[in-house]
Amino acid sequence: MPLEDTDTDARTPYQLPFPQDALQEIVIPKAIPDDERVWVPQAENVAFRPLCLNRSQGYWMNLLRVRKSGVLSRHRHPQAVHGLVLRGRWHYLEHDWVAEEGGYVFEAPGETHTLVVPDDVDEMITMFQVNGVMLYVDPYGKTMSYEDVFTKIDMCRAHYEKVGLGADYVDQFVR
Amino acid sequence: MPLEDTDTDARTPYQLPFPQDALQEIVIPKAIPDDERVWVPQAENVAFRPLCLNRSQGYWMNLLRVRKSGVLSRHRHPQAVHGLVLRGRWHYLEHDWVAEEGGYVFEAPGETHTLVVPDDVDEMITMFQVNGVMLYVDPYGKTMSYEDVFTKIDMCRAHYEKVGLGADYVDQFVR
Repeated sequence: MPLEDTDTDARTPYQLPFPQDALQEIVIPKAIPDDERVWVPQAENVAFRPLCLNRSQGYWMNLLRVRKSGVLSRHRHPQAVHGLVLRGRWHYLEHDWVAEEGGYVFEAPGETHTLVVPDDVDEMITMFQVNGVMLYVDPYGKTMSYEDVFTKIDMCRAHYEKVGLGADYVDQFVR
Repeated sequence: MPLEDTDTDARTPYQLPFPQDALQEIVIPKAIPDDERVWVPQAENVAFRPLCLNRSQGYWMNLLRVRKSGVLSRHRHPQAVHGLVLRGRWHYLEHDWVAEEGGYVFEAPGETHTLVVPDDVDEMITMFQVNGVMLYVDPYGKTMSYEDVFTKIDMCRAHYEKVGLGADYVDQFVR
Protein backbone atom coordinates (compact mmCIF):
# COMPACT_ATOMS: atom_id res chain seq x y z
CA MET A 1 0.00 0.00 0.00
CA PRO A 2 1.85 3.11 -1.18
CA LEU A 3 0.18 5.23 1.50
CA GLU A 4 2.15 3.54 4.21
CA ASP A 5 5.39 4.82 2.79
CA THR A 6 3.93 8.29 2.67
CA ASP A 7 2.84 7.92 6.28
CA THR A 8 6.17 6.95 7.61
CA ASP A 9 7.90 9.75 5.78
CA ALA A 10 5.31 12.35 6.65
CA ARG A 11 4.73 11.46 10.27
CA THR A 12 8.08 12.12 11.79
CA PRO A 13 8.33 15.88 11.21
CA TYR A 14 4.74 16.45 12.36
CA GLN A 15 4.71 14.27 15.42
CA LEU A 16 4.14 16.24 18.59
CA PRO A 17 4.79 14.25 21.75
CA PHE A 18 1.71 13.06 23.64
CA PRO A 19 1.59 14.00 27.32
CA GLN A 20 3.44 11.39 29.35
CA ASP A 21 0.30 10.75 31.38
CA ALA A 22 -2.03 10.31 28.39
CA LEU A 23 -3.94 7.05 28.25
CA GLN A 24 -3.68 4.64 25.36
CA GLU A 25 -6.27 5.06 22.60
CA ILE A 26 -8.70 2.25 21.76
CA VAL A 27 -8.90 1.10 18.15
CA ILE A 28 -11.43 -1.57 17.25
CA PRO A 29 -11.31 -2.39 13.54
CA LYS A 30 -14.73 -4.06 13.56
CA ALA A 31 -17.21 -2.73 16.08
CA ILE A 32 -19.54 -5.56 15.05
CA PRO A 33 -17.27 -8.49 15.86
CA ASP A 34 -16.80 -11.67 13.83
CA ASP A 35 -16.36 -13.66 17.04
CA GLU A 36 -19.73 -14.30 18.68
CA ARG A 37 -18.02 -14.70 22.06
CA VAL A 38 -17.32 -10.97 22.19
CA TRP A 39 -21.05 -10.33 22.72
CA VAL A 40 -21.95 -10.39 26.40
CA PRO A 41 -25.44 -11.76 27.13
CA GLN A 42 -27.46 -9.53 29.43
CA ALA A 43 -31.05 -10.77 29.10
CA GLU A 44 -33.07 -13.09 26.88
CA ASN A 45 -32.24 -12.14 23.28
CA VAL A 46 -30.25 -9.12 24.48
CA ALA A 47 -26.46 -8.80 24.40
CA PHE A 48 -23.88 -6.01 24.42
CA ARG A 49 -20.44 -5.57 22.93
CA PRO A 50 -18.18 -3.23 24.92
CA LEU A 51 -16.25 -0.52 23.07
CA CYS A 52 -15.14 1.81 25.86
CA LEU A 53 -15.83 1.20 29.53
CA ASN A 54 -14.89 4.48 31.10
CA ARG A 55 -14.39 4.14 34.83
CA SER A 56 -12.87 7.60 35.36
CA GLN A 57 -15.98 9.35 34.03
CA GLY A 58 -18.55 6.63 34.67
CA TYR A 59 -19.99 5.88 31.24
CA TRP A 60 -19.91 3.15 28.66
CA MET A 61 -19.91 3.00 24.87
CA ASN A 62 -21.28 -0.26 23.56
CA LEU A 63 -23.20 -1.94 20.85
CA LEU A 64 -26.53 -3.25 22.04
CA ARG A 65 -27.95 -6.19 20.12
CA VAL A 66 -31.56 -7.21 20.55
CA ARG A 67 -32.90 -10.15 18.60
CA LYS A 68 -36.47 -10.99 17.68
CA SER A 69 -38.94 -10.13 20.41
CA GLY A 70 -36.26 -9.03 22.85
CA VAL A 71 -37.10 -6.31 25.36
CA LEU A 72 -34.82 -4.06 27.35
CA SER A 73 -36.80 -3.63 30.55
CA ARG A 74 -38.17 -0.29 31.70
CA HIS A 75 -35.35 1.91 33.00
CA ARG A 76 -34.61 5.49 33.89
CA HIS A 77 -31.60 7.49 32.70
CA PRO A 78 -30.48 10.29 35.02
CA GLN A 79 -27.96 11.31 32.34
CA ALA A 80 -27.92 11.64 28.57
CA VAL A 81 -27.81 8.74 26.13
CA HIS A 82 -26.68 8.85 22.52
CA GLY A 83 -27.65 6.14 20.03
CA LEU A 84 -26.80 5.39 16.41
CA VAL A 85 -28.73 2.56 14.80
CA LEU A 86 -26.43 0.29 12.80
CA ARG A 87 -28.91 -2.47 11.97
CA GLY A 88 -32.63 -3.02 12.26
CA ARG A 89 -35.25 -0.91 13.95
CA TRP A 90 -36.65 -0.42 17.44
CA HIS A 91 -38.82 1.87 19.48
CA TYR A 92 -39.67 2.78 23.02
CA LEU A 93 -43.07 1.98 24.45
CA GLU A 94 -43.03 5.52 25.84
CA HIS A 95 -42.45 7.32 22.52
CA ASP A 96 -44.25 7.45 19.19
CA TRP A 97 -41.14 7.64 17.03
CA VAL A 98 -39.23 4.67 15.64
CA ALA A 99 -35.42 4.49 15.57
CA GLU A 100 -34.50 3.33 12.08
CA GLU A 101 -31.26 1.96 10.65
CA GLY A 102 -28.92 4.87 10.01
CA GLY A 103 -30.75 7.07 12.49
CA TYR A 104 -29.45 8.97 15.49
CA VAL A 105 -31.17 9.66 18.80
CA PHE A 106 -30.35 11.80 21.80
CA GLU A 107 -32.24 10.72 24.88
CA ALA A 108 -32.52 13.49 27.40
CA PRO A 109 -31.68 13.04 31.09
CA GLY A 110 -34.78 12.08 33.07
CA GLU A 111 -36.28 9.62 30.58
CA THR A 112 -37.82 6.35 31.66
CA HIS A 113 -38.33 3.99 28.76
CA THR A 114 -38.65 0.40 27.59
CA LEU A 115 -36.92 -0.67 24.39
CA VAL A 116 -38.69 -3.17 22.16
CA VAL A 117 -37.83 -4.67 18.81
CA PRO A 118 -40.82 -5.28 16.56
CA ASP A 119 -41.68 -8.82 15.53
CA ASP A 120 -40.70 -8.24 11.90
CA VAL A 121 -37.11 -7.31 12.81
CA ASP A 122 -34.79 -10.27 13.36
CA GLU A 123 -32.00 -8.23 14.89
CA MET A 124 -31.19 -4.68 15.83
CA ILE A 125 -27.73 -3.38 16.66
CA THR A 126 -27.29 0.15 18.01
CA MET A 127 -24.25 1.94 19.32
CA PHE A 128 -25.15 3.56 22.63
CA GLN A 129 -23.26 5.85 24.89
CA VAL A 130 -24.79 5.49 28.33
CA ASN A 131 -23.70 7.96 30.97
CA GLY A 132 -23.83 7.30 34.69
CA VAL A 133 -26.42 4.69 35.48
CA MET A 134 -29.48 2.86 34.22
CA LEU A 135 -32.08 2.41 36.92
CA TYR A 136 -34.43 -0.46 36.21
CA VAL A 137 -37.82 0.47 37.61
CA ASP A 138 -41.19 -1.12 38.20
CA PRO A 139 -44.41 0.23 36.62
CA TYR A 140 -44.65 2.78 39.44
CA GLY A 141 -41.11 4.08 38.92
CA LYS A 142 -39.62 2.35 41.95
CA THR A 143 -36.00 1.28 41.46
CA MET A 144 -35.55 -2.48 41.20
CA SER A 145 -31.90 -2.73 40.14
CA TYR A 146 -29.25 -0.79 38.26
CA GLU A 147 -26.38 -1.02 35.82
CA ASP A 148 -23.31 1.18 35.71
CA VAL A 149 -19.91 0.91 34.08
CA PHE A 150 -18.72 -1.29 36.93
CA THR A 151 -21.52 -3.83 36.64
CA LYS A 152 -20.85 -3.86 32.89
CA ILE A 153 -17.14 -4.54 33.46
CA ASP A 154 -18.02 -7.35 35.88
CA MET A 155 -20.43 -8.90 33.37
CA CYS A 156 -17.75 -8.78 30.67
CA ARG A 157 -15.12 -10.29 32.93
CA ALA A 158 -17.35 -13.20 33.95
CA HIS A 159 -18.52 -13.86 30.40
CA TYR A 160 -15.08 -13.69 28.78
CA GLU A 161 -13.72 -16.06 31.41
CA LYS A 162 -16.55 -18.48 30.76
CA VAL A 163 -16.22 -18.49 26.96
CA GLY A 164 -12.46 -18.92 27.04
CA LEU A 165 -11.29 -15.44 26.02
CA GLY A 166 -10.03 -14.91 29.56
CA ALA A 167 -11.32 -12.47 32.18
CA ASP A 168 -8.66 -9.91 31.19
CA TYR A 169 -10.03 -9.69 27.63
CA VAL A 170 -12.16 -6.84 28.95
CA ASP A 171 -9.12 -4.78 29.97
CA GLN A 172 -8.58 -3.44 26.44
CA PHE A 173 -11.90 -1.58 26.66
CA VAL A 174 -11.40 -0.11 30.15
CA ARG A 175 -10.15 3.47 30.59
CA MET B 1 -48.28 -1.08 9.94
CA PRO B 2 -49.77 -3.39 12.58
CA LEU B 3 -47.06 -2.48 15.06
CA GLU B 4 -48.44 0.99 15.48
CA ASP B 5 -51.67 -0.37 16.86
CA THR B 6 -49.70 -2.53 19.25
CA ASP B 7 -47.70 0.51 20.31
CA THR B 8 -50.64 2.63 21.08
CA ASP B 9 -52.30 -0.10 23.07
CA ALA B 10 -49.17 -1.08 24.93
CA ARG B 11 -47.84 2.35 25.72
CA THR B 12 -50.53 3.81 27.90
CA PRO B 13 -50.35 1.45 30.87
CA TYR B 14 -46.55 1.58 31.00
CA GLN B 15 -46.00 5.29 30.55
CA LEU B 16 -44.26 6.91 33.49
CA PRO B 17 -44.32 10.70 33.38
CA PHE B 18 -41.08 12.40 32.35
CA PRO B 19 -39.78 15.05 34.75
CA GLN B 20 -41.37 18.38 33.94
CA ASP B 21 -37.94 19.91 33.41
CA ALA B 22 -36.67 17.20 31.08
CA LEU B 23 -35.45 18.38 27.69
CA GLN B 24 -36.90 17.16 24.43
CA GLU B 25 -35.16 14.18 22.84
CA ILE B 26 -33.56 14.47 19.39
CA VAL B 27 -34.58 11.94 16.76
CA ILE B 28 -32.88 12.08 13.36
CA PRO B 29 -34.19 9.34 11.06
CA LYS B 30 -31.22 9.63 8.68
CA ALA B 31 -27.96 10.71 10.23
CA ILE B 32 -26.50 10.86 6.71
CA PRO B 33 -28.90 13.37 5.22
CA ASP B 34 -30.46 13.31 1.76
CA ASP B 35 -30.29 17.11 1.59
CA GLU B 36 -26.74 18.25 0.83
CA ARG B 37 -27.48 21.61 2.45
CA VAL B 38 -27.49 19.99 5.90
CA TRP B 39 -23.71 19.50 5.61
CA VAL B 40 -21.83 22.51 6.95
CA PRO B 41 -18.55 23.22 5.13
CA GLN B 42 -15.62 23.76 7.48
CA ALA B 43 -12.52 23.50 5.27
CA GLU B 44 -11.63 22.42 1.74
CA ASN B 45 -13.29 19.01 1.18
CA VAL B 46 -14.31 18.87 4.85
CA ALA B 47 -17.87 19.28 6.15
CA PHE B 48 -19.83 18.32 9.26
CA ARG B 49 -23.43 17.41 9.95
CA PRO B 50 -24.64 18.32 13.45
CA LEU B 51 -26.52 15.71 15.48
CA CYS B 52 -26.41 17.12 19.02
CA LEU B 53 -24.82 20.43 19.93
CA ASN B 54 -24.72 20.29 23.69
CA ARG B 55 -24.21 23.71 25.20
CA SER B 56 -24.91 22.68 28.79
CA GLN B 57 -22.04 20.18 28.84
CA GLY B 58 -19.89 21.64 26.06
CA TYR B 59 -19.62 18.86 23.51
CA TRP B 60 -20.88 18.05 20.06
CA MET B 61 -21.99 14.88 18.26
CA ASN B 62 -21.59 15.17 14.53
CA LEU B 63 -20.81 13.38 11.34
CA LEU B 64 -17.55 14.49 9.81
CA ARG B 65 -17.22 14.08 6.07
CA VAL B 66 -13.87 14.36 4.36
CA ARG B 67 -13.62 13.93 0.64
CA LYS B 68 -10.65 12.97 -1.49
CA SER B 69 -7.40 14.44 -0.24
CA GLY B 70 -9.06 16.43 2.53
CA VAL B 71 -7.11 17.08 5.70
CA LEU B 72 -8.33 18.03 9.15
CA SER B 73 -5.49 20.20 10.39
CA ARG B 74 -3.33 19.30 13.35
CA HIS B 75 -5.25 19.78 16.59
CA ARG B 76 -5.10 18.87 20.24
CA HIS B 77 -7.98 17.38 22.27
CA PRO B 78 -7.90 18.14 26.00
CA GLN B 79 -10.88 15.78 26.38
CA ALA B 80 -11.92 12.41 25.00
CA VAL B 81 -13.19 11.80 21.49
CA HIS B 82 -15.26 8.85 20.28
CA GLY B 83 -15.49 7.93 16.62
CA LEU B 84 -17.44 5.35 14.62
CA VAL B 85 -16.53 5.08 10.94
CA LEU B 86 -19.65 4.88 8.77
CA ARG B 87 -17.99 5.14 5.37
CA GLY B 88 -14.49 5.04 3.97
CA ARG B 89 -11.19 4.99 5.77
CA TRP B 90 -8.79 7.47 7.35
CA HIS B 91 -5.79 7.72 9.60
CA TYR B 92 -3.83 10.15 11.70
CA LEU B 93 -0.34 11.19 10.70
CA GLU B 94 0.59 10.62 14.34
CA HIS B 95 -0.58 6.98 14.56
CA ASP B 96 0.21 3.80 12.69
CA TRP B 97 -3.33 2.39 12.77
CA VAL B 98 -6.02 3.00 10.15
CA ALA B 99 -9.67 3.66 11.04
CA GLU B 100 -11.71 1.40 8.77
CA GLU B 101 -15.40 1.42 7.88
CA GLY B 102 -17.32 -0.16 10.74
CA GLY B 103 -14.53 0.53 13.20
CA TYR B 104 -14.59 2.36 16.50
CA VAL B 105 -11.92 4.56 18.07
CA PHE B 106 -11.50 6.18 21.46
CA GLU B 107 -9.03 9.01 21.37
CA ALA B 108 -7.59 9.73 24.77
CA PRO B 109 -7.41 13.23 26.26
CA GLY B 110 -4.10 14.89 25.44
CA GLU B 111 -3.77 13.75 21.84
CA THR B 112 -2.56 16.02 19.09
CA HIS B 113 -3.28 14.64 15.65
CA THR B 114 -3.91 15.36 11.99
CA LEU B 115 -6.62 13.47 10.14
CA VAL B 116 -5.99 12.52 6.53
CA VAL B 117 -8.00 10.56 4.01
CA PRO B 118 -5.90 8.44 1.65
CA ASP B 119 -5.96 9.18 -2.06
CA ASP B 120 -7.81 5.98 -2.89
CA VAL B 121 -10.79 6.88 -0.70
CA ASP B 122 -13.33 9.20 -2.32
CA GLU B 123 -15.20 9.95 0.88
CA MET B 124 -15.13 9.13 4.55
CA ILE B 125 -17.94 9.77 6.99
CA THR B 126 -17.39 9.24 10.71
CA MET B 127 -19.60 9.98 13.69
CA PHE B 128 -17.55 11.83 16.27
CA GLN B 129 -18.32 12.93 19.77
CA VAL B 130 -15.97 15.78 20.54
CA ASN B 131 -15.85 16.98 24.12
CA GLY B 132 -14.78 20.45 25.16
CA VAL B 133 -12.56 21.99 22.56
CA MET B 134 -10.31 21.32 19.59
CA LEU B 135 -7.16 23.41 19.67
CA TYR B 136 -5.62 23.85 16.25
CA VAL B 137 -1.87 24.01 16.71
CA ASP B 138 1.23 24.75 14.67
CA PRO B 139 4.06 22.21 14.23
CA TYR B 140 5.50 23.29 17.57
CA GLY B 141 2.22 22.80 19.44
CA LYS B 142 1.38 26.49 19.72
CA THR B 143 -2.36 27.19 19.61
CA MET B 144 -3.49 28.92 16.40
CA SER B 145 -7.28 28.73 16.76
CA TYR B 146 -10.00 26.61 18.33
CA GLU B 147 -13.44 25.13 17.88
CA ASP B 148 -16.01 24.45 20.56
CA VAL B 149 -19.73 23.76 20.55
CA PHE B 150 -20.43 27.49 20.28
CA THR B 151 -18.27 28.04 17.20
CA LYS B 152 -19.97 24.97 15.69
CA ILE B 153 -23.42 26.41 16.40
CA ASP B 154 -22.37 29.72 14.85
CA MET B 155 -21.07 27.96 11.74
CA CYS B 156 -24.32 26.05 11.39
CA ARG B 157 -26.42 29.16 11.84
CA ALA B 158 -24.52 31.12 9.19
CA HIS B 159 -24.51 28.21 6.74
CA TYR B 160 -28.20 27.33 7.13
CA GLU B 161 -29.14 30.97 6.66
CA LYS B 162 -27.03 31.15 3.51
CA VAL B 163 -28.43 27.98 1.92
CA GLY B 164 -32.03 28.89 2.62
CA LEU B 165 -32.85 26.48 5.46
CA GLY B 166 -32.95 29.43 7.84
CA ALA B 167 -30.61 30.24 10.72
CA ASP B 168 -32.97 28.56 13.20
CA TYR B 169 -32.64 25.21 11.43
CA VAL B 170 -29.78 24.55 13.85
CA ASP B 171 -32.04 24.89 16.91
CA GLN B 172 -33.33 21.31 16.63
CA PHE B 173 -29.80 20.01 17.39
CA VAL B 174 -29.05 22.32 20.33
CA ARG B 175 -29.52 21.12 23.92
